[in-house]
Amino acid sequence: VPSEFRLIDTFLAAFDRPSGQVRVGPGDDCAVLRTRVGEELCLTTDAIVEDVHFTLDRFTLEEVGHKALAVNLSDLASMGATPRWFLCAIAMPASFGAKEVRALARGMSALARTHEVPLAGGNFTRARELSITITAAGSVRRGKALLRSGARPGDRLFVSGTLGDARAGLELLLSGAEVGREGSRQRALLAAQKTPRPRIALGRLASRHARAAIDLSDGLAQDLGHLCAASNVGARVELARLPVSAALLSHSGGDRERALGLAVAGGEDYELLLAVPPRKVGAFVKACAQAGEEVTGIGEVTADLREVILSPTGKPVRLPGGFDHFARGRAI
Amino acid sequence: VPSEFRLIDTFLAAFDRPSGQVRVGPGDDCAVLRTRVGEELCLTTDAIVEDVHFTLDRFTLEEVGHKALAVNLSDLASMGATPRWFLCAIAMPASFGAKEVRALARGMSALARTHEVPLAGGNFTRARELSITITAAGSVRRGKALLRSGARPGDRLFVSGTLGDARAGLELLLSGAEVGREGSRQRALLAAQKTPRPRIALGRLASRHARAAIDLSDGLAQDLGHLCAASNVGARVELARLPVSAALLSHSGGDRERALGLAVAGGEDYELLLAVPPRKVGAFVKACAQAGEEVTGIGEVTADLREVILSPTGKPVRLPGGFDHFARGRAI
Repeated sequence: VPSEFRLIDTFLAAFDRPSGQVRVGPGDDCAVLRTRVGEELCLTTDAIVEDVHFTLDRFTLEEVGHKALAVNLSDLASMGATPRWFLCAIAMPASFGAKEVRALARGMSALARTHEVPLAGGNFTRARELSITITAAGSVRRGKALLRSGARPGDRLFVSGTLGDARAGLELLLSGAEVGREGSRQRALLAAQKTPRPRIALGRLASRHARAAIDLSDGLAQDLGHLCAASNVGARVELARLPVSAALLSHSGGDRERALGLAVAGGEDYELLLAVPPRKVGAFVKACAQAGEEVTGIGEVTADLREVILSPTGKPVRLPGGFDHFARGRAI
Repeated sequence: VPSEFRLIDTFLAAFDRPSGQVRVGPGDDCAVLRTRVGEELCLTTDAIVEDVHFTLDRFTLEEVGHKALAVNLSDLASMGATPRWFLCAIAMPASFGAKEVRALARGMSALARTHEVPLAGGNFTRARELSITITAAGSVRRGKALLRSGARPGDRLFVSGTLGDARAGLELLLSGAEVGREGSRQRALLAAQKTPRPRIALGRLASRHARAAIDLSDGLAQDLGHLCAASNVGARVELARLPVSAALLSHSGGDRERALGLAVAGGEDYELLLAVPPRKVGAFVKACAQAGEEVTGIGEVTADLREVILSPTGKPVRLPGGFDHFARGRAI
């Protein structure tokens, strides 16, 4: 087993040299970060834990590294923030050596490079199980962070991408299907589960139009509830308008109702739910089209405090329970 | 078992409402932090893991909560930073309920209150073993962070407090001595191991006089090596000058040489090692005396790149190896 310092060097070698707001990067007791006049920092910390968020027989270490950073960047996206730097604390079994560390770093650094976010520091420790806790920071102009609490009655609700794919991917993993032998549709669902793509560009774009946002980690129904509670409003959403992928429909045996059930309560979508005031909807939709960002209107914010999800026949949907959200982690 | 939200509320209730630079605290996707013109942020992340850094039969949960925050604040102290906010990610076994969460929070919040550092956010997740990963931020005036790399030949080396106590406390824990039945000296050693006191006030004071600093987590000999490597200098330290407590001498059976051995290579002291230019030594020592901060001169920085630790007879000391530092964690 290589020495401690060699493992850290192996990890760091996968990342670009920190620049931008990082004045002092890895190697001192703290990283030293510049801040800019007129900006505020958005900070989030999220952990992923072996046998809770992933298993090492179903995820490659590259995928684990990617997902650990992705779930944090998704929180920055929901604030409309531009990623600036991140810290990475890894607890790993004694069996981990350079090969494992390199694989973790490869998945994480590829995503970091995509979003030009430097690794500013971190921590390595031993543990029985692998866990990765990342703290990520993004910047917004002062007072411009997209909070959960900004939604007002009449605002239109939009979601990005398609919903339910990550949950279907989890079902595929749990069913024990041979990974790597699925068709392209199954691969798309597995990718949604294992390597979610944080909606950074959309979040930044939306910060000019939307009044409130949340990223979908607990599933649309739950996260809509969080947004409504924080804003002290209700919502009316039409189930039939939820965007579902062809892959999800196929996974659901062509049963659209079943697909919509996964879309509304699935979890781990890492898409954005946005509340846009009516007068800004036109400009928002146009800007999304120009930027190639896929968004779908699904309903609106109401003064009535209930969140109602209507079936195609106009009846309120009773949501299936049972997804243990605490087991998958919870921001405080 | 209480629901997820109740556990988070239980945890948050132990902390003061965030203020200061925290514009949006726990409850949104990110915390939103103000920054001040002319300041830089020092950021650190450190984890403590069950059965690696503590065992639940020897540490109370209050002590675990305290130590998790203390080791991070110590990194801020070594930069001369003023603590501003922290984030706390906890992975906990399913057996943990409100009682356990309250105990963890109690130990952590008491230390947070001492240093007036607000909890800005965090994350809860399940795991097989308890681990706490904290990210802490402090501020320094632009360009004024005390780095490891600032030491120059001729600088005087000072350490704070006494050394070796935490290692002796670890020996007591490992020896299986009945916790709670020790005399006051043993209690002092156990306290050094379980509830270290980060040297925030000394770090801030030292930032006006010292040129380089590091906090002692790996033991003086190793951390002196880190400081010298970062500064591209060497050092000459006199073993006999290392400050040891009466409790450590007693623990060592009155054998001063044995006590000094623990002091030079012990680990987890969370004291500061400071390099002060000769012309500032007088003012520094006077300021420490006025502030009630205990510091001891132990040697000096040299142009010769070796780090030499001299015995009372003037011979270089050969250091005992064997403390597995990686097992206890390592900043990157």
